[in-house]
Amino acid sequence: MSAVTVIPIEGVPEIEAGDDLAALILATDVELLPRDVLVVAQKVVSKAEDRFVEAKDRTGAALRESTRVLRKQGDMIISQTRHGFVCANAGVDASNVEGDRVVLLPLDPDLSARRIRARVAHLREIDIGVVVADTFGRAWRIGQTNVAIGVAGFDPFVDYVGETDVFGQELVATRICVADQIAGAAEMVMKKTTGICAAVVRGAEVSWGRGAAGSIVRPPGEDLFR
Amino acid sequence: MSAVTVIPIEGVPEIEAGDDLAALILATDVELLPRDVLVVAQKVVSKAEDRFVEAKDRTGAALRESTRVLRKQGDMIISQTRHGFVCANAGVDASNVEGDRVVLLPLDPDLSARRIRARVAHLREIDIGVVVADTFGRAWRIGQTNVAIGVAGFDPFVDYVGETDVFGQELVATRICVADQIAGAAEMVMKKTTGICAAVVRGAEVSWGRGAAGSIVRPPGEDLFR
Repeated sequence: MSAVTVIPIEGVPEIEAGDDLAALILATDVELLPRDVLVVAQKVVSKAEDRFVEAKDRTGAALRESTRVLRKQGDMIISQTRHGFVCANAGVDASNVEGDRVVLLPLDPDLSARRIRARVAHLREIDIGVVVADTFGRAWRIGQTNVAIGVAGFDPFVDYVGETDVFGQELVATRICVADQIAGAAEMVMKKTTGICAAVVRGAEVSWGRGAAGSIVRPPGEDLFR
Repeated sequence: MSAVTVIPIEGVPEIEAGDDLAALILATDVELLPRDVLVVAQKVVSKAEDRFVEAKDRTGAALRESTRVLRKQGDMIISQTRHGFVCANAGVDASNVEGDRVVLLPLDPDLSARRIRARVAHLREIDIGVVVADTFGRAWRIGQTNVAIGVAGFDPFVDYVGETDVFGQELVATRICVADQIAGAAEMVMKKTTGICAAVVRGAEVSWGRGAAGSIVRPPGEDLFR
């Protein structure tokens, strides 16, 4: 087992609509190696994809981005987004957005991740994993953690079903969402107060190949944890 | 912002009741520096604390460890433990346990963490953080992640309330549960199939001082995410 390293990417400029985010990240002095996972904050992905709306429309936008409202408290809603994610205000927020604007989540964060991955492959000729990360609250536990809302280049899960422990006993039903752990690890170097919007996670043992964060959304009928 | 490194600790022997877990971890060739966070798997903490019960009593034990059963499916329950955690089978499980036994969660995982921290301070004269980590499922999202069930030496939260973003706007209500992110990061090097039961997380920016995982338990009345 080797170490996992989480490296902040400093020097990415303020992102505006239409920017080539992958190229701007690569233009920093980041070292990016094959099979690194590049974690990018949802906020800058949304900005590059021009997902701005006027701040005064924040509540309306959050409702339009939602398929189902679960709770309301003051001007905050907890809802399920069109992608299936359950989060506050459908991910619409104003922090680190200049001027009187807010940004919505990307239309298809898995597609966003695949595009960044393809762009890096094109510009650098290396195969990496990509995670688009956002900060979500969760049931039962106080505080937020970063989770993966977009994934490309690897399976978001590491599956131990059928594998055995050190005593040769079968490990039952353990399916680790490594993409969320990668997103959470990256948060530790992507402080909201410093504007660091991307990080490299190096050394994570994942299954390389096709994968998408859409597969993390749990069908409500199967959810025993609510 | 500096990098965060997650280092597996190899060579910890199989733990039995009464073992001095901290001493056995320090007896490996692990390098442990001041302000590292030592993450220890709940399983070995429970073993050292003799939380074994007979495997045939697993369901009964899970019920006795619970204050409230939320769901039942086959021989699995989702319940709230006496500590307030919501998880499968009250954390009682058989993987990586030798013989016809299962182990319960530690009676007081925060106390377990404080003891490990104190023992490291005594044996090495360094101040570290400690996380006791377990693998929990969660609402809305498929797969499990490692979370902190015991914390010592630092505040499990990094609080951005009142801080400002790069545009000088106040960040509202962002309270990152960095202890859970540290636990999740450590999982990536503590594979269940290899028996690696501990890891060092180096470089995490946390608030050093008193802290406990008990403070992560969300009072049900405040929970908008269920």
